[in-house]
Amino acid sequence: NVSNNYAFLPIVNKGKYPAKVKSRRQRWDVRPSEMANKTCNPIRDIVDGMKLTPNPEKAMIALSIGDPTVFGNLPTDACVLKALKDAVESARYNGYAPSIGYQKSREAVANFYNSSLAPLEAKDVVLTSGCSQAIELCISVLSNPGDNILIPCPGFSLYKTIALSIGVQVKLYNLLPERSWEVDLEHLESLVDEQTTCLVLTNPSNPCGSVFSKEHLEGILKVASKHCLPILADEIYGDMVFPGCTYTSLATLSSDVPILSCGGLAKRWLVPGWRMGWILIHDRRDVFGSEVRSKGLVKLTQLILGACTLVQGALESILQNTPQHFYDSTTSFLKANAEICFKELSTVPGLTPIMPSGAMYFMVGIDIDHFPGMKNDVEFTERLVTEQSVFCLPTSAFDYPNFFRIVVTVPEKLMVEACVRIRLFCQQHYLPHRADSSELDQ
Amino acid sequence: NVSNNYAFLPIVNKGKYPAKVKSRRQRWDVRPSEMANKTCNPIRDIVDGMKLTPNPEKAMIALSIGDPTVFGNLPTDACVLKALKDAVESARYNGYAPSIGYQKSREAVANFYNSSLAPLEAKDVVLTSGCSQAIELCISVLSNPGDNILIPCPGFSLYKTIALSIGVQVKLYNLLPERSWEVDLEHLESLVDEQTTCLVLTNPSNPCGSVFSKEHLEGILKVASKHCLPILADEIYGDMVFPGCTYTSLATLSSDVPILSCGGLAKRWLVPGWRMGWILIHDRRDVFGSEVRSKGLVKLTQLILGACTLVQGALESILQNTPQHFYDSTTSFLKANAEICFKELSTVPGLTPIMPSGAMYFMVGIDIDHFPGMKNDVEFTERLVTEQSVFCLPTSAFDYPNFFRIVVTVPEKLMVEACVRIRLFCQQHYLPHRADSSELDQ
Repeated sequence: NVSNNYAFLPIVNKGKYPAKVKSRRQRWDVRPSEMANKTCNPIRDIVDGMKLTPNPEKAMIALSIGDPTVFGNLPTDACVLKALKDAVESARYNGYAPSIGYQKSREAVANFYNSSLAPLEAKDVVLTSGCSQAIELCISVLSNPGDNILIPCPGFSLYKTIALSIGVQVKLYNLLPERSWEVDLEHLESLVDEQTTCLVLTNPSNPCGSVFSKEHLEGILKVASKHCLPILADEIYGDMVFPGCTYTSLATLSSDVPILSCGGLAKRWLVPGWRMGWILIHDRRDVFGSEVRSKGLVKLTQLILGACTLVQGALESILQNTPQHFYDSTTSFLKANAEICFKELSTVPGLTPIMPSGAMYFMVGIDIDHFPGMKNDVEFTERLVTEQSVFCLPTSAFDYPNFFRIVVTVPEKLMVEACVRIRLFCQQHYLPHRADSSELDQ
Repeated sequence: NVSNNYAFLPIVNKGKYPAKVKSRRQRWDVRPSEMANKTCNPIRDIVDGMKLTPNPEKAMIALSIGDPTVFGNLPTDACVLKALKDAVESARYNGYAPSIGYQKSREAVANFYNSSLAPLEAKDVVLTSGCSQAIELCISVLSNPGDNILIPCPGFSLYKTIALSIGVQVKLYNLLPERSWEVDLEHLESLVDEQTTCLVLTNPSNPCGSVFSKEHLEGILKVASKHCLPILADEIYGDMVFPGCTYTSLATLSSDVPILSCGGLAKRWLVPGWRMGWILIHDRRDVFGSEVRSKGLVKLTQLILGACTLVQGALESILQNTPQHFYDSTTSFLKANAEICFKELSTVPGLTPIMPSGAMYFMVGIDIDHFPGMKNDVEFTERLVTEQSVFCLPTSAFDYPNFFRIVVTVPEKLMVEACVRIRLFCQQHYLPHRADSSELDQ
């Protein structure tokens, strides 16, 4: 009798089990979870709702996608690809890494960003599957359903998508275009309440391309400090600023505010698909402690593990060997394109371009009342595709009306051509007097 | 006056904002979220709590880690590495992929697993960051807080970790060692209630190494069908069965039960660190519909995006070019090691090894009452490290007492040596009569 061999087993729940008649479902009825229902993607929702039929007589120029690789004019550095190939050949990076990343790779990131003003060690670095997972982990570790986080307006849509998906509310603080998109500090402070768990700051900014001054960052830190609010600093575009402009990482200015700085290889190294991101934990007063670090972030990383080990294995070499001229040529190129945009569009009736200082984006205001038949930025950009085959992202996708965002990574020739077409489009539709003005009757 | 340029802007919230005195926090108080607190990792909890001090006179042999790459004796196939290097060199896979993966890569997976009994198209494939994310997406899309899922006992701990982290309860159904770890169908059915959203099945099994027969799988499908319960089939070890044994993918047997089959490159291609996983959606009666597919799974993938594009780019070539003899030599090696274990341990007093048929695992029962001074599997395996420098995972980590799990990917020489030491350990501690038996006094 074979089962004798198992006499030692704790005999639990053996024998018959009463069938729960009540529990039996009579038909198939499978629905997506509330979490899935709460997960919205504003960009997709708006873009998928647009009629985007280009003018067949003009080749399409898409200035909408925040992916620097799409036109092939901005390849990553050869040493980045070599580092990856070496990692593959070594066959040393095929197994599981710790859920927070290889110690060696975390050290490499710590060394790369370490400074006397904001010291970093490997223990302060968590490697993630892209900057998106870094942001998700930070919001998830700090916030419970019913809490709220403060996010910039206009701002990158992912903060809202992630927050709402886990039942965390968002409060939008205003950025001021007339002050190069600086934060309206009074408005920001007025939004803080008992349930506010985190201030999200994007610098340099997507979609604005703005880069905050040291003084302005200090002003923001003052608000956070006064209200004891940790900061999620999305610095994925860190150091990606135009020649002549200076980038200051927030942590170098903070003496007391705990900062989770999120970054990655995506933009500066031009390989967004590789999904290599990181969280840098700056917390000199040890506000987070092991609670938020080990019991919080580390445990959350164990849910799905992190970045591809091949990219982790290449990380040290990438950070050590990427030549300065690679970074410089990228930012020079972006600045040149931004200047073309600004020069071309600042004389176009009905448009107010705002010159960026970094990142890959350019915001253009639309004086919509002067474009009859187009009631907002969505209709404006839709018509721009229909007539001129130029697609710019309407900033309603960023909860901000009557602007459009241009991605300035396109080849110069296309940048110029796009501006010419935008000018043509505006000239054809611009009405000097407000469409609703009585002067129309004269 | 510069701000005139911005007259067109919707002037909202300009001017002064009342400071909310009440809202001001007086001190720093940052705690990890409930989600983080609810995220537990049973294996870590148990292993971190163990005193693992090897015997200095014996080299450590770790049979605990489910990573086939740790000993270097099971390299992936050369064509897998070549496919990756080609993807890097092509420089075509550095940008963002769609959040569900490149169409071409999803087609490759669909073609690889497509069969007349379970047809698959690209639209039925979602690429993920490892099989863990596949499992997380499936549990998240089907379950709300308060719902429950049915998971195997003993079973892989991640199901529970993910479920509890999002407030979903787990109900453990028994696997029966005396029936080669088949499901106790009566027990399984008795657990179904109104809140049950999903039946999780692991075949081949981690930690048991069991492979279910066609007939048994049909029995499980019958229960799911009767209760209209979708199945999450964790088939990451699919096709990884010993020579002479047959693996049947669940979907080929199901006419009506919707099945989410989770898999990836990790185990069969021996590259777990690459984080390349997938969900195969089998749903011939279209129970899921676009609700669960598009509004559910697709939206959830947009939260953090998925797998590294380089590995996605290599996927088609990997699936097409990996030679059959690579798969065969892996399974032959695993079978040979398993047979060594079984032969050696089946004659060891106090142990009941259960011969596996697939995957990389081997379960050994401990007749704990015959090992005085060791009150359970955790103490048994702890002492085994202290005295013999052999580490096997105690199955309490899988919510199942008095077994230990051996990973059979180690080189044969170590496998033999480990068995010798385990025999020695048991011979030294085994007491023919139960420790609590009165016969001791005689």
